[in-house]
Parts: sequence; structure tokens; C-alpha cells
Amino acid sequence: MNIKDEIAAMGKKSVAAAYELAEMSTKKKNSILEAMANGIEEQKAAIRAANEKDLVAGREAGLNSALLDRLELTDKRMDGMINGLRNVVALQDPVGDEISSWIRPNGLNIRKIRVPIGVIAIIFESRPNVAAEAAALCFKTANALILRGGKEAIHSNRAVVEAMQSGGEAKGLPANSIQLVQTTDRSAVKELVQLSECIDLVIPRGGEGLIKAVTEMAHVPVIKHYKGVCHTYIDESADVDMALDIAINAKCQRPGVCNAMETLLVHSKIADAILPRLKERLDSKDVEIRGDSRTRSILPGIKTATEEDWHAEYLDMILAIRVVGSVEEAVAHINKYGSHHSDAIVANDESSQKFFTRGVDSATVYVNASTRFTDGGEFGLGAEIGISTDKLHARGPM
Amino acid sequence: MNIKDEIAAMGKKSVAAAYELAEMSTKKKNSILEAMANGIEEQKAAIRAANEKDLVAGREAGLNSALLDRLELTDKRMDGMINGLRNVVALQDPVGDEISSWIRPNGLNIRKIRVPIGVIAIIFESRPNVAAEAAALCFKTANALILRGGKEAIHSNRAVVEAMQSGGEAKGLPANSIQLVQTTDRSAVKELVQLSECIDLVIPRGGEGLIKAVTEMAHVPVIKHYKGVCHTYIDESADVDMALDIAINAKCQRPGVCNAMETLLVHSKIADAILPRLKERLDSKDVEIRGDSRTRSILPGIKTATEEDWHAEYLDMILAIRVVGSVEEAVAHINKYGSHHSDAIVANDESSQKFFTRGVDSATVYVNASTRFTDGGEFGLGAEIGISTDKLHARGPM
Repeated sequence: MNIKDEIAAMGKKSVAAAYELAEMSTKKKNSILEAMANGIEEQKAAIRAANEKDLVAGREAGLNSALLDRLELTDKRMDGMINGLRNVVALQDPVGDEISSWIRPNGLNIRKIRVPIGVIAIIFESRPNVAAEAAALCFKTANALILRGGKEAIHSNRAVVEAMQSGGEAKGLPANSIQLVQTTDRSAVKELVQLSECIDLVIPRGGEGLIKAVTEMAHVPVIKHYKGVCHTYIDESADVDMALDIAINAKCQRPGVCNAMETLLVHSKIADAILPRLKERLDSKDVEIRGDSRTRSILPGIKTATEEDWHAEYLDMILAIRVVGSVEEAVAHINKYGSHHSDAIVANDESSQKFFTRGVDSATVYVNASTRFTDGGEFGLGAEIGISTDKLHARGPM
Repeated sequence: MNIKDEIAAMGKKSVAAAYELAEMSTKKKNSILEAMANGIEEQKAAIRAANEKDLVAGREAGLNSALLDRLELTDKRMDGMINGLRNVVALQDPVGDEISSWIRPNGLNIRKIRVPIGVIAIIFESRPNVAAEAAALCFKTANALILRGGKEAIHSNRAVVEAMQSGGEAKGLPANSIQLVQTTDRSAVKELVQLSECIDLVIPRGGEGLIKAVTEMAHVPVIKHYKGVCHTYIDESADVDMALDIAINAKCQRPGVCNAMETLLVHSKIADAILPRLKERLDSKDVEIRGDSRTRSILPGIKTATEEDWHAEYLDMILAIRVVGSVEEAVAHINKYGSHHSDAIVANDESSQKFFTRGVDSATVYVNASTRFTDGGEFGLGAEIGISTDKLHARGPM
């Protein structure tokens, strides 16, 4: 079979599975989720061996250490997959929920009900644990899943999916509820994202290059975020100590992730009071500062921030700083250079808070809190399949 | 300027307008909507003259009478545009609505707020009144709008948009809130739907060909429905008189629209009682019947329904009829051949109703009512910008 036909056949099987899932009771889904978790537990050794195969091949192919790290299924990650599946058992089942209902003057009784999306395709890069996370959430919400992982993780992905399937099938998991694209040929991605008769949603998880390519090729809806250029704006009305704590947390707690701060904006009336104290704390953490001319006049000796810096997602211990004259200017900067992901204001003045939260066009907008909170777990959602900066359907952690 | 640059420039202007709109109070928006309605009222003569130009050109170009009819801005349609704008004044403003809120154990207070989508592009065919309907709803919800109408309606569209703009600007309508693509070159559509930096959503309104083309070219989200192959299933537990009334309404009230019934499914245990009576009523309305072998054995002399008929959107006085053995078989038929638009069951048995509503994968599923009710006005939504069969964001009349 050629790749086009192979993907089309997978799509048809997924549609059939999705209709079976739509009718399944919450109780049955939960017992299958438990069985999927047990499946991984029982096949730990086999998954470990498959993962070792990928790691050896990866080292031979000269993958860098960050990639090899993401590829590795340590005991902790294996337990993370198992617990992830079990945690989803406890989450409420949204299928069948009544969102709203009303009766029309003519007697028509209208009910708006939550239903499964149908067939979801998830395209991910090197982390094989994504397969288990995605399977848990898609299955609980009665969606059939097609997974397409990175070539470098193919043995690990096969082993993880097989463990979940064989575990789940014993308790009645419909065949083809969770399918993995077996070919590692790149053209499979194109076939997948253009299969609009069968696939209802694509979620790409990986670098900006992958996500852009998927979005441009797709004939089906895509939920995504490209990158996180997150800002903290310190208003003239800010509590200085709070502002310093938030800025340090947002930049330093974990700089390599999408919700870390990349640019700090400071109101000119508070810049003299705050920037020297901030620099001291950033220096102690070895953070490189790049500033505009006003910032450099307050903090002599730092590097110059160029136009490129305002667009940059460093994912590193580097911070761009700009002094602004007003909250309006801060909002304009964020809407121009930001990525619509997560942005924060530190302010006590209510009108500044209101202007900022209404004006900043981002998925998550914070008042007196760190952008690092953007996370399904932190938001109390129970689990997360990704963070969306889209404006349709899902926005923010989902 | 070439078309690519022209569209890109429009996109940038729309983004700026969208940020202005996001900050605007409901009161101000309502006074602008009134002014837009007044603008059309005052420029009726100019709009009429522009429309006459299009009609003359259309007749010269040999447009068929259905197209010419849709193109014509009669007094009634002109009043419809004016009233449409005024009706939207009375609708609730969703911007800023709190959808839900909760406090996390760590004290984080999370609020989910409705915000504008941003910039919406609407691509439509011959009906120039779509421009006013779309402008009213997009403006009330603080979205900037780019309209791209059919070549045959260009003078009418220009006049309608100009009237709304000049009316609205007197009351503070931000420039570029409502823009019309001036070129009639076809390549403008491609540029528009690929302008992902500026445009957040595309809504195509027109024939299946237009919608498919837009969906395949687009790099931005598209909300749409391709067609309406709507079903009515008469269960063995149905009230026969009610079933007949619903079937006649669904087929005959207005056969040329997307929510009209195209295929009737009848349970075998009730087929003998219902089909002869149904045929009598359909005959009196000159409806052509095409049936499967069971239907033809009950109604001798009717045409044979082929595989093509089950897929057909007749939009005409033609009805396909199939006898099925169970509600399960009815659901399987609908999910296989339907368009996920509107489908109805007529039944008194609750378990049949429940199986049908849970199993049928359509935007609107009816129990003991006609599919003809799928409409924003009928649902009490106040206005409608289209009907979506998508599963993300909006589904059904919106």
C-alpha cells in the first residue's frame, strides 16, 4: 500500500472507532484507562528495551544531548505516563454535559450538549511520553486518536502504544481507538493533515518549524501555539518587592519553556527605583540583560537591545528590558512583538490593570502573578494536551 | 500595488482597527450601529443605482434568473439590511463576559473571559445584503471585518459598505473596521485566506465549490458548512400523524435551502402504515419519490434510489426514501451519507430518542421536530452569520 492509501485506511478505521467511543459509558472508559495504565506497567521492560534501541540509534546519528534527553524514557517518565493515565480516570467526563438550554415561544426545547470532536491527529517530535498523555485525554473525551511521532522515537512509540492497546483491549478498548502511523516517511504528515473527510482536528506539538509546516499544509483545523515571547510589565503603581519576585520567577525558574518571560517592560516613573535592584538579583543568577537606551542609562554596561531582541524567544538566561512611558505603550509593545501566549502586569492601580487585561491580546493575561503559571495542572484542569494561542475553540492551557 | 501587497496592507489596517474596537464600550458600539443603519437608509437611492448597474451587467453577462434574483436589492431587502443592523443593537454584547472563574489552592484567581476574535474575513457570492448582516454582527462583537464579495455584485457591495462606513464614522466608527476588497481578481481570495499574521478567521458563504477551495487554500481557521443532506427518521414508536406533518414540512416548506430534508428513513414495522399516506401528500405537492427496494414494494411505480441518491443534496422537490430495520441502522446511514448538518427522529420511545441523539454526529439533532428549524432566528440567537457543521468553536447556527 502506498502512503496515501495507508493514511486514508487509518482515517476510516478511526472514524468507525470514534462512533463506538461516542456511545461508551464513563464507567467503562475509566476501567479501560486503568487497564491501559496497567498495560504500560506490565510492559515496562519491553518499552525500556525499545527505548534503548532508539537511544543507541540516536547516539549513532549524532543527536544532541537535549534531544537524547527528551527521547529517554527514564523510570520517572515511565511512572509519569502510568500516573497520567490514572489521573485522567478521576477527571469529569465532559461528553453529554448540557452547556445551556432554553425553550422558544413556539415550544421548541433547545439543548446545547458537549459531544466528542471525533478523530484527533497529534503530530509530535522526540518525547515518546506524549503518546500516553495524548491517548489518556483523547480516550476519556471519546475521541479516536492517530499519533505520528518523530522518526528517532519510533521503537519507543510503538512499544508505548502497543502496551496501552493490549492492556485496554482486554477491558473492551475498541480496536483502532489509538493508532500510530507506522511509516516514518515525511510525506505521511501531509497525507494526514489533508484527510479532511476523516480527521476533525490536528494538534502539532514541537518546534515552530513543524507547527508552521503543519498549519500551512492542513485542510483540517489545527490548534497550536508557535512560541512564547512572554512579557512582564511593571506599572508605576506596582509594589516593588512583588514586582522583583515576579520578574525573577518568570525569567529564572525554568528559562527553557514557553511561559518563561523574555522581555520586561518598566514604567519610566518606577524604572530608577526598580532596575538597579533587579539587576543585582539577575546578576546573581547569571542572567544577561539587553536594554533600550533608557535602561542602559540606568544600568550602564549592559548590552544594547536591538529590534531583533523584542521578537526573540531566548529560552535561555537572557532578558530584554525596555522602559515605557505608560500602560498604553506597554500594551502596544506586547501586541506588536508578543506571541499572544502569556503576559503579566504588576500594578496596584485598578485602571492600569483593567486597561492591560482588556488591551493585551494574549491567551493568558496575568495581574500580579508570574507567566510561569500558564499550565493545565497549575490552572486546576487536571491534565494538559497543549497550550493554544489560537482564538477559536480553545485558548490557553487545554 | 500588486494584489498580495494590497491584501497585506488591508490586513494590517484591520489589526489596528480590531485593537481599537476591543476597547470600545457597548453604548458607543450601539450608537454606531444605529448610525450605520441610518447611513444605508439615507443612501438608498445611491445603493439602488449601484445595484441597477450590477443587474444590467449581470443580464448582459447572461446570469441565470436565480443569480439575478439573489443579486437584486429590492426595497424589502434594503429594509432587511437596515432592520438587521438595528436588531443587533438589542443583542447582548458578549465582549468581557465571564464564562467561569475559580480560585486555586495557591490563591491564584482564574477568570475565563470572552474576547473578540480579532479580524474576520467573509467571502461571499452574489447576495450583497450579506455585507450588512456580516458587518452588524462582527462590529457588535468588536471584530474588524474584511469583506470579499462576488464580482457580479461589486458596485452594490461598494455602495452598501460605503453607506455603513460614512454613517458610522460620524459616530466614531474606527476607520478600517469594515473593509471591502476592491479588486475583483480571483487571486485576492488566496492572498486573504493565507494572511495568517493578520486574519483570525475566514467564513466562506456560498456554494460547495467556493467553500472547498477556501478550506484547502487557507492557512487560517475556517468556519463553514459544505452542504445540507438532512434526514428524517421515523421510528416504529412514532406518532404517525406527527411524522407525516414533520416530513412534509421538512421536505416542502422551502426545498431550496440547506436545512430541508433530502432523505427519509422509515422503520420497517411502520413503513406499510405510513408510506402510502405520505405518498398521497407528497403527490399533492408534486414531490418526486425515489425509493429503495422495500419502499418500491410498498409504493409501486416510484423511481429507484441509487447510491448517488443517498449522497444527494437535491435542493428541489425530490425525496429519497429508505426502509431500515432499526434505529441503529438509521444512525449508521445518516453518519455515512449525511452532511452533519441537521437530522431528525420522530419517535415516542425514549431509548430510541436517546440512541439517535447520542449516535448521530450532526450539528443539530431533532426529536419530534422538523430540520427546517435550524436557523439563528428560530433558535432565538437574534441573528445569524452562518451555520457551521465544524466541530471546533461554533457548531450549528451561529
